[in-house]
Amino acid sequence: MVATPIKAKYDIKDISLAPKGKQRIDWAGREMPVLRQIQERFAKEQPFAGIRIAACCHVTTETAHLAIALKAGGADAVLIASNPLSTQDDVAACLVADYGIPVYAIKGEDNATYNRHVQTALDHKPNIIIDDGSDVVATLIKERQHQIGDLIGTTEETTTGIVRLLAMLKDKVLTFPAVNVNDADTKHFFDNRYGTGQSTLDGIIRATNVLLAGKSVVVAGYGWCGKGVAMRARGLGSSVIVTEIDPVRAIEAAMDGFRVMPMAQAAAEGDIFITVTGNKHVIRPEHFEVMKDGAMVCNSGHFDIEIDLKSLGAKATEVKEVRNFTQKYSLPSGKSIVVLGEGRLINLAAAEGHPSAVMDMSFANQALACEYLVKNKGKLAPGIYNIPKELDQEIASLKLKAMGISIDTLTAEQEEYINSWTMGT
Amino acid sequence: MVATPIKAKYDIKDISLAPKGKQRIDWAGREMPVLRQIQERFAKEQPFAGIRIAACCHVTTETAHLAIALKAGGADAVLIASNPLSTQDDVAACLVADYGIPVYAIKGEDNATYNRHVQTALDHKPNIIIDDGSDVVATLIKERQHQIGDLIGTTEETTTGIVRLLAMLKDKVLTFPAVNVNDADTKHFFDNRYGTGQSTLDGIIRATNVLLAGKSVVVAGYGWCGKGVAMRARGLGSSVIVTEIDPVRAIEAAMDGFRVMPMAQAAAEGDIFITVTGNKHVIRPEHFEVMKDGAMVCNSGHFDIEIDLKSLGAKATEVKEVRNFTQKYSLPSGKSIVVLGEGRLINLAAAEGHPSAVMDMSFANQALACEYLVKNKGKLAPGIYNIPKELDQEIASLKLKAMGISIDTLTAEQEEYINSWTMGT
Amino acid sequence: MVATPIKAKYDIKDISLAPKGKQRIDWAGREMPVLRQIQERFAKEQPFAGIRIAACCHVTTETAHLAIALKAGGADAVLIASNPLSTQDDVAACLVADYGIPVYAIKGEDNATYNRHVQTALDHKPNIIIDDGSDVVATLIKERQHQIGDLIGTTEETTTGIVRLLAMLKDKVLTFPAVNVNDADTKHFFDNRYGTGQSTLDGIIRATNVLLAGKSVVVAGYGWCGKGVAMRARGLGSSVIVTEIDPVRAIEAAMDGFRVMPMAQAAAEGDIFITVTGNKHVIRPEHFEVMKDGAMVCNSGHFDIEIDLKSLGAKATEVKEVRNFTQKYSLPSGKSIVVLGEGRLINLAAAEGHPSAVMDMSFANQALACEYLVKNKGKLAPGIYNIPKELDQEIASLKLKAMGISIDTLTAEQEEYINSWTMGT
Amino acid sequence: MVATPIKAKYDIKDISLAPKGKQRIDWAGREMPVLRQIQERFAKEQPFAGIRIAACCHVTTETAHLAIALKAGGADAVLIASNPLSTQDDVAACLVADYGIPVYAIKGEDNATYNRHVQTALDHKPNIIIDDGSDVVATLIKERQHQIGDLIGTTEETTTGIVRLLAMLKDKVLTFPAVNVNDADTKHFFDNRYGTGQSTLDGIIRATNVLLAGKSVVVAGYGWCGKGVAMRARGLGSSVIVTEIDPVRAIEAAMDGFRVMPMAQAAAEGDIFITVTGNKHVIRPEHFEVMKDGAMVCNSGHFDIEIDLKSLGAKATEVKEVRNFTQKYSLPSGKSIVVLGEGRLINLAAAEGHPSAVMDMSFANQALACEYLVKNKGKLAPGIYNIPKELDQEIASLKLKAMGISIDTLTAEQEEYINSWTMGT
Repeated sequence: MVATPIKAKYDIKDISLAPKGKQRIDWAGREMPVLRQIQERFAKEQPFAGIRIAACCHVTTETAHLAIALKAGGADAVLIASNPLSTQDDVAACLVADYGIPVYAIKGEDNATYNRHVQTALDHKPNIIIDDGSDVVATLIKERQHQIGDLIGTTEETTTGIVRLLAMLKDKVLTFPAVNVNDADTKHFFDNRYGTGQSTLDGIIRATNVLLAGKSVVVAGYGWCGKGVAMRARGLGSSVIVTEIDPVRAIEAAMDGFRVMPMAQAAAEGDIFITVTGNKHVIRPEHFEVMKDGAMVCNSGHFDIEIDLKSLGAKATEVKEVRNFTQKYSLPSGKSIVVLGEGRLINLAAAEGHPSAVMDMSFANQALACEYLVKNKGKLAPGIYNIPKELDQEIASLKLKAMGISIDTLTAEQEEYINSWTMGT
Repeated sequence: MVATPIKAKYDIKDISLAPKGKQRIDWAGREMPVLRQIQERFAKEQPFAGIRIAACCHVTTETAHLAIALKAGGADAVLIASNPLSTQDDVAACLVADYGIPVYAIKGEDNATYNRHVQTALDHKPNIIIDDGSDVVATLIKERQHQIGDLIGTTEETTTGIVRLLAMLKDKVLTFPAVNVNDADTKHFFDNRYGTGQSTLDGIIRATNVLLAGKSVVVAGYGWCGKGVAMRARGLGSSVIVTEIDPVRAIEAAMDGFRVMPMAQAAAEGDIFITVTGNKHVIRPEHFEVMKDGAMVCNSGHFDIEIDLKSLGAKATEVKEVRNFTQKYSLPSGKSIVVLGEGRLINLAAAEGHPSAVMDMSFANQALACEYLVKNKGKLAPGIYNIPKELDQEIASLKLKAMGISIDTLTAEQEEYINSWTMGT
Repeated sequence: MVATPIKAKYDIKDISLAPKGKQRIDWAGREMPVLRQIQERFAKEQPFAGIRIAACCHVTTETAHLAIALKAGGADAVLIASNPLSTQDDVAACLVADYGIPVYAIKGEDNATYNRHVQTALDHKPNIIIDDGSDVVATLIKERQHQIGDLIGTTEETTTGIVRLLAMLKDKVLTFPAVNVNDADTKHFFDNRYGTGQSTLDGIIRATNVLLAGKSVVVAGYGWCGKGVAMRARGLGSSVIVTEIDPVRAIEAAMDGFRVMPMAQAAAEGDIFITVTGNKHVIRPEHFEVMKDGAMVCNSGHFDIEIDLKSLGAKATEVKEVRNFTQKYSLPSGKSIVVLGEGRLINLAAAEGHPSAVMDMSFANQALACEYLVKNKGKLAPGIYNIPKELDQEIASLKLKAMGISIDTLTAEQEEYINSWTMGT
Repeated sequence: MVATPIKAKYDIKDISLAPKGKQRIDWAGREMPVLRQIQERFAKEQPFAGIRIAACCHVTTETAHLAIALKAGGADAVLIASNPLSTQDDVAACLVADYGIPVYAIKGEDNATYNRHVQTALDHKPNIIIDDGSDVVATLIKERQHQIGDLIGTTEETTTGIVRLLAMLKDKVLTFPAVNVNDADTKHFFDNRYGTGQSTLDGIIRATNVLLAGKSVVVAGYGWCGKGVAMRARGLGSSVIVTEIDPVRAIEAAMDGFRVMPMAQAAAEGDIFITVTGNKHVIRPEHFEVMKDGAMVCNSGHFDIEIDLKSLGAKATEVKEVRNFTQKYSLPSGKSIVVLGEGRLINLAAAEGHPSAVMDMSFANQALACEYLVKNKGKLAPGIYNIPKELDQEIASLKLKAMGISIDTLTAEQEEYINSWTMGT
């Protein structure tokens, strides 16, 4: 290979962290058999030869495997962080040093740096944008209309990003195809539910070391992520309260055995609050006011706006770091509120993000979505496209096989039966 | 009203059971506040004045409330059983005696009687068919094409029925509108999952009085019904195995903590087998052969074809009733297999079907779907229509209120936020 | 054998129910392999030759197997009901007709009849009393001191009965040996927890057919029975509140994820109340007053005094049967309270009591306890004796084997290790 | 206070870690209200004035509070590590620097250092030994009989240590009183179950970041610790297999819904193995041989002998660190086994040990047990003593209050009822 890693431009914390990153990336690969098979095929077929890709993702050991797979497939890819707190600096170092992939991401970077990295991603003149929350796409539309001609399309893997793309579509500014990776069954069923579920509680435990058993945990939002978080909080012995704005989900939560009530009421009961709504200011001054002394609040939704920390900070008489990723806001009333991970995704801030086993499927979807865009270049009208059902089923089958699980197949008789309406009782 | 109850034609077990039926219907009404409100509105608005409705349903206390609501709305309705074993004879008696609704349904009726009742329903020349499994509609298409002109449309509430309607659509024989009640969120999330879940286990316990704790339970199918059954079997202390043909559902079951394997392997491990697939011969001779002595098999899917009882019966040296709804098939090997509820829906055969609280929402959907068909008479092309999202949300809201649960509403700021794509990190 | 069944004296509902009783007793036997092995040994060894036994038990299919085993061992046994509502009349009929065992028990018998049957049991001049709640023993002490000389000892299998025996011991009126069957691990771990757990919820569902999912269930008492009931209510989708008087159990309930609060507070939140405390008036007027309209109350503790129904009845403007085993008490406030099973053990009143699989172990303990008393006749000082550990382990091993489960055994190295203190880190 | 912290002798990693230790110790204190109240009383009453205490514990933030409480009560205390891997170096530093408590403990210390520290503890000539696994007591008996005269008594808080004390008692070498803290309800119910449960899974996740959902987890041992581990593994979505040697516990595990089988069979099925038996070589060569490639093994029992790592290491072709606390043993067959935390307590090696909330009660028991020994100096015969029931209840009541939970108290009528045997049905 001609590319010489050391010449790669990058903006990372410390390149000497590469060996530790390598070790951790290798470890993650162990649980990512689906993406590995795709990478092997890409290496042979070179679907991305001559294609520039800008990927905006949480820079984790799992993302590393996606980036490596794209590069193996011939892509000229750059990687930036989709969140100022989620970067794993050793992973960034390894991608630069060992794989020659330009990375622009530093854990704890300030907003100015974050925004500069978004610009760097666009400076790469991407043909494909892999986005996570739609920040790169939104910036492209707002500031670089002239580059849209370069774009084959974008892929998006968060609920939040899809909501924004739908708003762009309504406003008629989405003038290129976008693939909705989030709604692939092999993505949202697993990543959002089991991934967010485990890793959110993991983040809370690492940040605080509190016993979950016997605690009252309030989960705001009962979408796929909220379902996962509520299920795991209960699995660790907490009594869980769910808040919702959607009546169907609210009944679902109730019938799953959780208590359902408005946040105004839950605020007074909870020991730990977790927001996963995709919305803004779900916990706000009126709620802080009635919380117990020492109540903990954190967020596992995409953006750091679900908890109104600005208002909280404005009122606080002191903000003090009491453990890593754990800040105590003292209030004039004498009460304090403990904020975890600065209100950013707690699973990435205080833990290691989603386990590899789920990201394997999510990133397999990303990789295949990129290939799909390239294969269909010029054929797709502007709009939002779902992952084709067949890809979804194929990913699931590869995964099952890797898990060592066999399942049934239809007999000829059954095949005929379910395609017929004439056989009855 | 002119109609004199006692003159109603009917074919039921014993009209003297009416008082007990009345008592039980009244009791069920307690948990059906949504349908009650709809009934009250229907009584005022008379949406079904002059409309003939043939309803094919499980004749239970909950169905009684649907029938009463339709009649209150002016309908000229007849009711037949959608399953030979599911009729509650006291309910049938009460509907005839106290409400003047013609019912043709006898618990344990043979297939000839069942088919005759389907014909009776069609003799009523229905403008609307409320179907459950699509038997009435299939018969109409096969045998009474001339009556299709009378039909405004049909509603269907089972997964099985929808699969058949889709096959009819593909075969171009579905020449009228059909409303898919099954896929309303307020139907399948609740009825299929929580309703089937509880009532299936209830049926098994009533039929056998076995302790579920410590038993190995095999659930065939991990759709909404299967999810509910697996969840409740675990909730009662069983170790649950799931079989599937769909890889996505299979991984979902595995990540929910269940073991997943082909039926051929599960057959040797299970103590109790429950089929909820909507397919045919899911348990068949090759499986019976490897089962433990005394293994129990039952079905909670729509039709009684999921277990191949004909083959089992052909092999058996003796078939003996060992408890109500419980038959022991002795096999030449000396082993026996215990069949519950003759392979028909065990929750209706041995217990009382879905609890009223879920049927409240399902039948609210049915009632509103009928009204929707009437209101849109002549405007809907042939095809399958979903329940409009607004009706679904309205039903959920009414239900929540009846459950005494309040939820959050969006603030103006939040409303703006989720409709915008320009605000980012 | 000389005894001619038809001459047996008895007081039962209807001897013609015997065939149905036989069928059900045979079915139960299927899940009672441990007691069956004991019965086979008794039949050979005749440990009870010449011994008169009075057994006061719930007359169920499982008790039938205990009675049959005792008789097989040579006992001259009579059986009375330990609860006016728990008798299964067909079982009583079969024991009389087919096994020649005198039974004095009628479902729904009034208190006078119940007390007369207790006298009949004592008229039998028992050498051994198998008691269930200590009513027979208490009557013996209070009214028939002269018969105490006949007595070898008594066995007791309820928590309630043990509490009473301890009180007798303290009052120095317990002048004979009593075997505490309740505290055998193979009894209370399983019977009280898994047996009471499943059968209590089963009783509630049969009595009401309500959906448990989404309901708020209040469990009073978190002993072994309460743990089982709470676990199963949660397993069926309810949100569970526990009330307790013991602080250790209260924390345990909280850390198991349940909410814990005083009954005065829980009363306003619950949809369904279940008492399992062994104490009196756990739910009383002050609680009824704040309950929701339509709240359901039932009891799964030994005696029917846990709910103060007398006070409730005194206030009620009407008491009406709304379903079998389900009575609605209308209160002057316009609110109503629904009482299940008249406040008696709901699992026996509305369902079939504990499943055979757990009673197998409980009654194996009873049978071996009786044998133990006979073998140690004259050697045991007055007092309360636990089941020897070896019997307990033996029962567990037999049961495991019957369940098809193998477990590990200590290696020689391990055996040495756990008996030594000199090997350390 | 005269004691000048800087003069304290100690053997720790790095005293400059004290500020971080202080921060973390303060944080832990937040969840330890019971011990705090005891400390405040000790500070006033000075129960340990003139008493030398040697404490051998896991040197964690929670232990820090115990040491501080003892010192506040006047004790001349030294602290050593009870396990070479469990020391938190920052805590050790803070205790030395800020509280003047001599600590001898370094994370990762070798066996020679560990043993030297045990000697140092005995050089302190303790009047009371707080032991954790009985290593200090065993060394005293074996090597320093002449010091036994100094000893008032010892306290022990692990199941393992109690087993060893019982063996010492049998061998007649336990010639002083020992208080069994482990069997206090407020200790083993909570610490062993909820503490070990959460922290073991936490340790595994921190060490590996694997997704637990969908994994097959084998738990060896179903005592209080094993129950906690199995419950939490299930709560995180794993399918759990339990191995046992005790038949009663084996049935209990089965009825709790887990699969039960011998380790020889489980070895081939598990993805992750966790030993919590208190015994030796529970996983040994015959089991490694049949494990899946990449199977993970770890231990949460007291000593590092539950997994036979010596044999595994002897066979391995390579042992490689693949993540912190995670080593891959490559076997000649081409398969590898992943060992976490070197087979030492995984919750202390890779995570932070038990959460403060449970240690609060455990260490409250320790503190009160020490006070009990001092108060009863000279009055207790050699032997093993349980914590008095009243202390246990008092701790539970204090804890409940701190959790904000109220419970019921007996009414006068109820008090009378449960003390009487004369009131019956």
